[in-house]
Amino acid sequence: MAKEPRPVEELSLWDDAQAMITKARAEGIDTVYERLQHQTPHCRICEQGLSCRNCTMGPCKITAKAPRGVCGADADVVVARNFGRFVAGGSAGHSDHGRDLIEVLEAIVTGETTDYKITDEPKLRRIAEEVGVTVAERDVKAVATDLLEVFFGDFGSRKKQISFLSRVPQKRKDIWKKLGMTPRGVDREIAEMMHRTHMGCDNDAPNTMIHAARTSLSDGWGGSMIGTELSDVIFGTPSPSMSEANLGVIKEDKVNILVHGHNPVVSEMILAAARDPQIIAEAKALGATGINVAGLCCTGNELLMRQGIPMAGNHLMTELAIITGAVEAVVVDYQCIMPSLVQISGCYHTRFIDTAQKARFTGAIHFDIHPSNALEQAREIVRLAVKAYSERDASRVDIPCEPVKIMTGFSNEAVISALGGTLDPLIQAIVAGDVRGAVGIVGCNNPKIKQDSMNVTLAKELIKKDILVLVTGCVTTAAGKAGLLVPEAIEMAGPGLKKVCGALGIPPVLHYGSCVDNARILQLCAALANALNVDISDLPVGASSPEWYSEKAAAIGLYAVASGIYTHLGHPPNILGSETVTNLAVSGLEDLVGASFVIEPDPVKAAELFDIRIKAKRKGLGLSE
Amino acid sequence: MAKEPRPVEELSLWDDAQAMITKARAEGIDTVYERLQHQTPHCRICEQGLSCRNCTMGPCKITAKAPRGVCGADADVVVARNFGRFVAGGSAGHSDHGRDLIEVLEAIVTGETTDYKITDEPKLRRIAEEVGVTVAERDVKAVATDLLEVFFGDFGSRKKQISFLSRVPQKRKDIWKKLGMTPRGVDREIAEMMHRTHMGCDNDAPNTMIHAARTSLSDGWGGSMIGTELSDVIFGTPSPSMSEANLGVIKEDKVNILVHGHNPVVSEMILAAARDPQIIAEAKALGATGINVAGLCCTGNELLMRQGIPMAGNHLMTELAIITGAVEAVVVDYQCIMPSLVQISGCYHTRFIDTAQKARFTGAIHFDIHPSNALEQAREIVRLAVKAYSERDASRVDIPCEPVKIMTGFSNEAVISALGGTLDPLIQAIVAGDVRGAVGIVGCNNPKIKQDSMNVTLAKELIKKDILVLVTGCVTTAAGKAGLLVPEAIEMAGPGLKKVCGALGIPPVLHYGSCVDNARILQLCAALANALNVDISDLPVGASSPEWYSEKAAAIGLYAVASGIYTHLGHPPNILGSETVTNLAVSGLEDLVGASFVIEPDPVKAAELFDIRIKAKRKGLGLSE
Repeated sequence: MAKEPRPVEELSLWDDAQAMITKARAEGIDTVYERLQHQTPHCRICEQGLSCRNCTMGPCKITAKAPRGVCGADADVVVARNFGRFVAGGSAGHSDHGRDLIEVLEAIVTGETTDYKITDEPKLRRIAEEVGVTVAERDVKAVATDLLEVFFGDFGSRKKQISFLSRVPQKRKDIWKKLGMTPRGVDREIAEMMHRTHMGCDNDAPNTMIHAARTSLSDGWGGSMIGTELSDVIFGTPSPSMSEANLGVIKEDKVNILVHGHNPVVSEMILAAARDPQIIAEAKALGATGINVAGLCCTGNELLMRQGIPMAGNHLMTELAIITGAVEAVVVDYQCIMPSLVQISGCYHTRFIDTAQKARFTGAIHFDIHPSNALEQAREIVRLAVKAYSERDASRVDIPCEPVKIMTGFSNEAVISALGGTLDPLIQAIVAGDVRGAVGIVGCNNPKIKQDSMNVTLAKELIKKDILVLVTGCVTTAAGKAGLLVPEAIEMAGPGLKKVCGALGIPPVLHYGSCVDNARILQLCAALANALNVDISDLPVGASSPEWYSEKAAAIGLYAVASGIYTHLGHPPNILGSETVTNLAVSGLEDLVGASFVIEPDPVKAAELFDIRIKAKRKGLGLSE
Repeated sequence: MAKEPRPVEELSLWDDAQAMITKARAEGIDTVYERLQHQTPHCRICEQGLSCRNCTMGPCKITAKAPRGVCGADADVVVARNFGRFVAGGSAGHSDHGRDLIEVLEAIVTGETTDYKITDEPKLRRIAEEVGVTVAERDVKAVATDLLEVFFGDFGSRKKQISFLSRVPQKRKDIWKKLGMTPRGVDREIAEMMHRTHMGCDNDAPNTMIHAARTSLSDGWGGSMIGTELSDVIFGTPSPSMSEANLGVIKEDKVNILVHGHNPVVSEMILAAARDPQIIAEAKALGATGINVAGLCCTGNELLMRQGIPMAGNHLMTELAIITGAVEAVVVDYQCIMPSLVQISGCYHTRFIDTAQKARFTGAIHFDIHPSNALEQAREIVRLAVKAYSERDASRVDIPCEPVKIMTGFSNEAVISALGGTLDPLIQAIVAGDVRGAVGIVGCNNPKIKQDSMNVTLAKELIKKDILVLVTGCVTTAAGKAGLLVPEAIEMAGPGLKKVCGALGIPPVLHYGSCVDNARILQLCAALANALNVDISDLPVGASSPEWYSEKAAAIGLYAVASGIYTHLGHPPNILGSETVTNLAVSGLEDLVGASFVIEPDPVKAAELFDIRIKAKRKGLGLSE
């Protein structure tokens, strides 16, 4: 018997989402919400992390009646194995993304491509110097060549520690060294995680968890950080600008191209091609007023941060954006792209185009994009979209709202520049208690949670308490749609934050970029800790992923905790089947790394927990609560 | 209600195993067989590869009623994701093992250790030359230093292809290139496999499978091959010698130390320490007649191949060996070490000692062994075992049989040497039809299958048909116990094989080493193909893992197939939930890479399938059937 569809009001905080879910239902199109219903209830064993499929003596289920798998692994071992691989999956995603940017930089310096260039040479020189490359009086390409070798080396097996550990406070590095948690090489830690979780290797859950943390650190301070820094070098370091968000950024009178995925390498070329006057003329010849590129998910964040391109939506809006009926093409690179988008595109005139050999979609149109052919391929893609415009069925178009304004572009460079060239004013504001602390709200949507309800409520509650909020990834659009990403949002903030942000003309919730850009937050924390001569775990800061769904979010959460940052999750990973692993996550790690996870589904309570934590950390620094 | 224990005759082919299972039951000790019973029936969804836990929108089960996961992934995508990670786990195991040997070589050349040394300098020079290192008139350490950099590079991101592809026939490399299957870097392929299987990346099952094959190739021609070659360099290249196998190698009057795991790095040191006259004197002072080191699993194979150390048993004998009550210590490195061994050791006086930071066992005694402290630590371990001897309860000792003789040590170097310095005599024997072809039987035991019944029957059936059999890993002890690893076994072979092996004084079933040593078989196939100027897929050869259980076996099977070798499995991996993936595995790959998997639970039928295949391949080469 088919289940009753859930009321749309329960599914999303947003009118645009609710309207599109209603439209999808009227048109007989299944979305993530129907699929979730079909998949509910979930397997309790899998949900608790208690099923093991890592060999064919099984698969095994650890239960009260069968407390050990065929090999003898108990609940602790099985849960740790599964969680270790989960984190490895997330770390691999971000880090492979970072590697792709090193390869683009290589293509630039070898002359394999002229589609890409070094846009922020001073940043290139700065980070090269940071990681020990000789910079003075050398040609930019020579510096870049050395830098890319250093970064490739960070993925290898020849280092005792990855390069950007130069940014980490010594106290933190000492903790990692003592625990055997120092990340040596990005791919190495991932491969070792896979090795350890093979049958008959690591059979001590805490030991596996330590390596999971090490693997995640290789992502946060390695793959992700390289991804962020090289994206800035190649596409420009973000600075504040205004843009828009929600489904209203899709334009009825334009050829609409949505870019989706994570890496700016393809989406930047799509944007460049969409600005080609000749192709725009072709679009106009078909009756459109122009070509509109809008973003979904993190590649959207990348274009938003650097190019001010509007955001059509976050994770749970990706299907719904197509359901407007006004999207000519969805162009994807990789990660978080629901395979269902191919089917939903097929219900409209929408072209679904994949571009990465490592992320093919059955039924998609494939363009094999490399640095050497990127712009040319992008032009073909945009022309496909233009052509599709003539097939659009106007009777099925429904763009349900007007866009809202958002402010974007808060790189650390931009923040420091806004502060007058140094972090001192921020430190003074923290010391004075105007900014009591800061929390990064990051990550995803999850259809198990009313879309963005937690993301938004937590942000609002925190700024009320004079806690600065930094958002990345899918929380960006959530905060934007809630009106939190504009300077006027200071009216929703506490008096201290209102004063500081008001003086600077910035929102109390800062858009810090995509998911890899959580590395910016790590870097900021490290810089603050170094300036105060304390460890990151001494700072009045926190992190949260209220509506997370992805392995990458687990990796991010774990590298935050391992870096000393108290981290809230709205729901637990699949670890509850092991008391050892669960206790380690929510308390034991505190003793080891000075921070732990906290699981709290109520965002108001989560804000209170952050408040308590920040009070304690402020007290520890000798500051007013 | 407790299930009736299964009759021991159904569980293993061997008297020694049956006796020990009976003893375990009498002593109230659970083994893998009881745990399998508790875990049966297995979850059908997991068994078919249809459960996905790669994000927290799920976990999902793909069923007829819910044919797509929350993200929209269908059965094909979910099965391919799971299989991809399964292969990545196996490849990571072998390859991390290979990396450990590079690090030992580095410790030798830097002088960090004197416990290890370069034993086979000519081999070092030979392989260095093969991978492009300048060798002539250079100091061995200089050559080794360059070689280890090349090998470390094979784990990195800077290569277009791994070094040992120099051994692969050009036709094969062309196929890989065309398919995007050329392995670039060991860790890179593993990390990319993890990336691709994150939600929203690779959603085209055949594309994922291609990368799984690439990942496995990075193991076979990369991590494993480096592991084998450097083990030979450091510990000596095997040459034929005699030894013994089965539980009878455990000696009632001696201090018995079992080494278990895969890497010779630790077990070689245990052996060296056990030969220390002073420690032997200590053992004698306690009433023992000496110290006996015997092998389990693949580290046993490593010591057997090079040092002639006897084999106590294979995978399903590891628990049962302890149940003899005569084992003072089990010393493990990593992989395939059932966690239950800790509990079973605890039922006796047996010390369970782990030695690798990446493979800790809750409840074990830990020794952190590094190249710099290995022999000293090994001495401490052996002394622990000696001390434990005095705690042995003689009333609980039961060594159920006398050992059988086996011949070991068939490296390719040894084979070529036996053939007079060239492969020509083997090629002539193949051309003449005396040796109609060759099949490698490799891999594991699995408690779902009567122990070694398939391993042994398949080997016997094949040699009857004049098909030379090469065994590695856990099939070694199986073949040995069946009397197949002695020259006299030619009596069980067909007339051609009898003639050839009889003339050479070798068994018709050759012990080719441990599981990483399947790389020796790859190398042999490549050498034969190159000599005949054909592709590997043109050769009358095959591979089989009849009783496999491990992710490594899946990786081995896949690299064999991707290398062009028809490969038999006694039971399928967890892929049957996808017709696309299953069809690709058992037929579609034939079109792509010239070989595929065949699943056949009956070893007699499997032998017939090999016979048909070998006939066809012989015909293709213009030879008699």
